[in-house]
Amino acid sequence: MSEQITRATVIIDPLTFQRQCLAWQRQGERVGMVPTMGALHEGHLSLVRVCRRHCDRVVVSIFVNPSQFGPGEDFERYPRTLESDVAALDTVGVDAVLAPAPIDMYGPGFSTVVQPAHVAQTLEGQFRPSHYQGVTTVVAKLLNLARADVAVFGQKDYQQLAVIRQMVRELNMPTEILMGETCRESDGLAMSSRNRYLTAEERKRALAISRALFACRDRVRRGERDARELATNLMQELIDGGLDSIDYAVIADGQTLASLDQVGAGAVALVAGHVGKTRLIDNVLLDHAS
Amino acid sequence: MSEQITRATVIIDPLTFQRQCLAWQRQGERVGMVPTMGALHEGHLSLVRVCRRHCDRVVVSIFVNPSQFGPGEDFERYPRTLESDVAALDTVGVDAVLAPAPIDMYGPGFSTVVQPAHVAQTLEGQFRPSHYQGVTTVVAKLLNLARADVAVFGQKDYQQLAVIRQMVRELNMPTEILMGETCRESDGLAMSSRNRYLTAEERKRALAISRALFACRDRVRRGERDARELATNLMQELIDGGLDSIDYAVIADGQTLASLDQVGAGAVALVAGHVGKTRLIDNVLLDHAS
Repeated sequence: MSEQITRATVIIDPLTFQRQCLAWQRQGERVGMVPTMGALHEGHLSLVRVCRRHCDRVVVSIFVNPSQFGPGEDFERYPRTLESDVAALDTVGVDAVLAPAPIDMYGPGFSTVVQPAHVAQTLEGQFRPSHYQGVTTVVAKLLNLARADVAVFGQKDYQQLAVIRQMVRELNMPTEILMGETCRESDGLAMSSRNRYLTAEERKRALAISRALFACRDRVRRGERDARELATNLMQELIDGGLDSIDYAVIADGQTLASLDQVGAGAVALVAGHVGKTRLIDNVLLDHAS
Repeated sequence: MSEQITRATVIIDPLTFQRQCLAWQRQGERVGMVPTMGALHEGHLSLVRVCRRHCDRVVVSIFVNPSQFGPGEDFERYPRTLESDVAALDTVGVDAVLAPAPIDMYGPGFSTVVQPAHVAQTLEGQFRPSHYQGVTTVVAKLLNLARADVAVFGQKDYQQLAVIRQMVRELNMPTEILMGETCRESDGLAMSSRNRYLTAEERKRALAISRALFACRDRVRRGERDARELATNLMQELIDGGLDSIDYAVIADGQTLASLDQVGAGAVALVAGHVGKTRLIDNVLLDHAS
């Protein structure tokens, strides 16, 4: 596939960005958005490519959103690499990049919050209590700024995708939400901006996550349907693989994220765990396997 | 002013309504919305006229929103008069009417909430604790359904307007919010769908509210700037006028709704009180007076 090479306009001011997007729409063009926190890797670029197939203009936001980080999390050290991010986006071609400062997004007295649906309370919601409230609020803002006809989110943050889908559906936002498949390193590790925190030794142990998830999917392909049995195996393989701690390892319904007894349509295996000081998440879909 | 006479299309299904609004926008037309709970009176029709001046298509929603009524409030008895509402709208001309059932707006498992900004916590927020959360959630839905370029709300629900303005600004919704002036009966009573609850005797006593507010505005015009003095007089006149109880009678900042010591630009006098079983609210702007 030949890729269009455009130089993206980087816009700092949200309202300038919004005016540009509205102008495109008034010409009858469909605007698609890929919200990111920057530190872009091939996974993000693949979301841009998916987006491009569904609309006329592709916009990307690069914003390390303070309100989705909890106390003691990595907000301060999260990589900020705007220059190389824009260069990477120029290789795939985007029409505009929104790169605001926190003060541009959260002015003095900011206090409106989009409280996410119940699906946000389990899994990540238990370990990062205010995380999804930060996500839904900023994503609502970003989709409104672009007045996005389409937005693409990665499968890697599977629960985030479920939370955003429910927000968009319940608030009747006029945006189609698409899922971009998880991109992986050649050995299976899910691409993540946080992988750069890993030492070489940790990088090896981190592989336990994708290995355990693939093994789980294989068991389903071979006919296993007992979700508790699968979850027990998944957990054991993560422990054996050398993870330092495991927040959860579950077989869940793809929409509600509720734990399942039996694998059926739309089931997902999800894992969160720590390797050293780095928290990693990953998941595989089990329904395609069944 | 000659009025355009169109027959409005009444749409029950929110997504059908949304498709219609998006189709207009793709033709380059600006869509304006007037959200209502029906039981329309001249005040609502004046909002439609304001709206028409600012856009190409005017849509009106008629939806008695359960989530903005508290326990013991008048959700059940709130007047539902769809047929005469649509007839009234036909006299001013609107392009579409959205009249969904509660189940069309809040499907099973609905749990996303737009939590309003701090401005929602005072005044009405103290007497109707979850009211504005119901308002912001449904208004976000309605503005998203219309993907409204413009929306008009009445000055009569002044705090609601302030709450919605802050939501729209903070969530970057691409909608311009306009205020339509309060319409009054010839004797001064602010028009309200709830006025029909009043007996003839109560209707007379209800006049105390507008009379006290006008007197307050007159004092400001004559040079009074001491907001505590004004509030004391306002309260006294409401008591003397025969209100059965008074929830609040304040001189407040027009944006934050915080009580003022001194009347300055953007000050508002706001009242809520009961006449019989009916709760009434009203307000006057004081800055135009100063």
